[in-house]
Amino acid sequence: MRHNARRPPSVVGRVLDVLGAFTSDRPVLTLSELSRRTGLPLSTTHRLAAELVSRGALQRDGDGQFRVGLWLWEVASLAPHGAQLRESAMPFLEDLYEATHQNVQLAVLDGAEVVYIERLSGRHAVNVISRVGGRLPVHATAVGLVLLAHAPADVQEQVLARPLKRYTGRTIASPEQLRRVLADVRQQGYAVSDGQIELVALSVGAAVHGPDDTVVAAISVVVPAQGTDPFTLVPAVRASARGISRALGAPRTLRLPEDVRRETHQSFH
Amino acid sequence: MRHNARRPPSVVGRVLDVLGAFTSDRPVLTLSELSRRTGLPLSTTHRLAAELVSRGALQRDGDGQFRVGLWLWEVASLAPHGAQLRESAMPFLEDLYEATHQNVQLAVLDGAEVVYIERLSGRHAVNVISRVGGRLPVHATAVGLVLLAHAPADVQEQVLARPLKRYTGRTIASPEQLRRVLADVRQQGYAVSDGQIELVALSVGAAVHGPDDTVVAAISVVVPAQGTDPFTLVPAVRASARGISRALGAPRTLRLPEDVRRETHQSFH
Repeated sequence: MRHNARRPPSVVGRVLDVLGAFTSDRPVLTLSELSRRTGLPLSTTHRLAAELVSRGALQRDGDGQFRVGLWLWEVASLAPHGAQLRESAMPFLEDLYEATHQNVQLAVLDGAEVVYIERLSGRHAVNVISRVGGRLPVHATAVGLVLLAHAPADVQEQVLARPLKRYTGRTIASPEQLRRVLADVRQQGYAVSDGQIELVALSVGAAVHGPDDTVVAAISVVVPAQGTDPFTLVPAVRASARGISRALGAPRTLRLPEDVRRETHQSFH
Repeated sequence: MRHNARRPPSVVGRVLDVLGAFTSDRPVLTLSELSRRTGLPLSTTHRLAAELVSRGALQRDGDGQFRVGLWLWEVASLAPHGAQLRESAMPFLEDLYEATHQNVQLAVLDGAEVVYIERLSGRHAVNVISRVGGRLPVHATAVGLVLLAHAPADVQEQVLARPLKRYTGRTIASPEQLRRVLADVRQQGYAVSDGQIELVALSVGAAVHGPDDTVVAAISVVVPAQGTDPFTLVPAVRASARGISRALGAPRTLRLPEDVRRETHQSFH
């Protein structure tokens, strides 16, 4: 948990450490696990946890284990993307889902990672490792490439300066390749991630613009890589992204250049 | 904010008060508004808010106003219903959405209120006042009636003992009527809320059972009241609720009695 590195010694910091101790792979923790993960004495952990439970920020199961509570979830649902972005996007995500019956995702940028805000998945959709509230690195996902392509220069340089985690043989592996791909994405107005996270999955992403025309989010469709021509998905994904942008109040003058299909495809192989 | 009534004087309590100061009608607050809503001195509020911002629990806009932060939302997405319930339900909610193109909702019980966990809405769906993360009283909504019908006796008595808020002329107004409706819901395995929140909207709800066969959530479809026969929706809503229950590991032996249409309908008028 990145925040632990700069944990303040204050009570506020300890409260947030207790909340941050819960992760997607460990959403349920015992008191001693909480204590271990936060580095707080058992007695302090017990006192903090009890107070958090009394307020609904945490909840305690019958077996005495702790989970994140409903009250905290309600408060968190007020986060900007949780409210306006998600509400505005949902109908368009629905349309996109009905057109594909695969995975439709909405994501925002946070540092060098994308955070998934919403995902619609069919019962027979290709499995994806992303989950709502989960993160993936920007360089390996279509939404990430779209968001990074439109991110401030300093954010792009941060990512380009770091080692690029390799998920498959098709994951973008060098800063040079990433720079070229980002230029393509900016020129074409969409990104394709073909087997970069899992060889079986392919995703096509496009940018969502806010009222000031800056890119505030990205959407993507994730389909089986086998036998899918990504470019058949591009018009639908771009149309949905534009619809959401319009719903958010983006300038109608927003125009994206035409596809340059052959080039993109090559730039990913 | 119900928790303010019993606010502990501790720092933990103050931190939660700051987070709880944000509401659906006021998701963006200035420092002085935060101070006023929490009853904390401006200096204390400033210190707490700054630390919460430094950890991503809150975020500060360019204009200096505060919102709930992305980090808190990520942590909160680990709440039980956020993870397993929502993931298991989504494909079935999608099917229900495609069958109706209206509003499809997933809700859980919290005291005398329902909390909406998920909602899928078409662009042309009837407007509903509920929102994800929002609450409505149990007696006026189909999901609420389903959840209350299967809630512990003490929870039912709490609700029956309170004044029942009247939204429209069709809102259940007396404890006697509510008792009768809850009995119907238990017998039939579904609930109909016809114009009880807004005269223009009608909803049909059914129960979602967990591994131990207890009712853990409810789903509903909200459609325009005008020209809709609620009973055409009952089979689809019940089938989806059963599908989700099965996905959650509910016993397959779960059987719900046949509809008793005329009786229910009368019990709501």
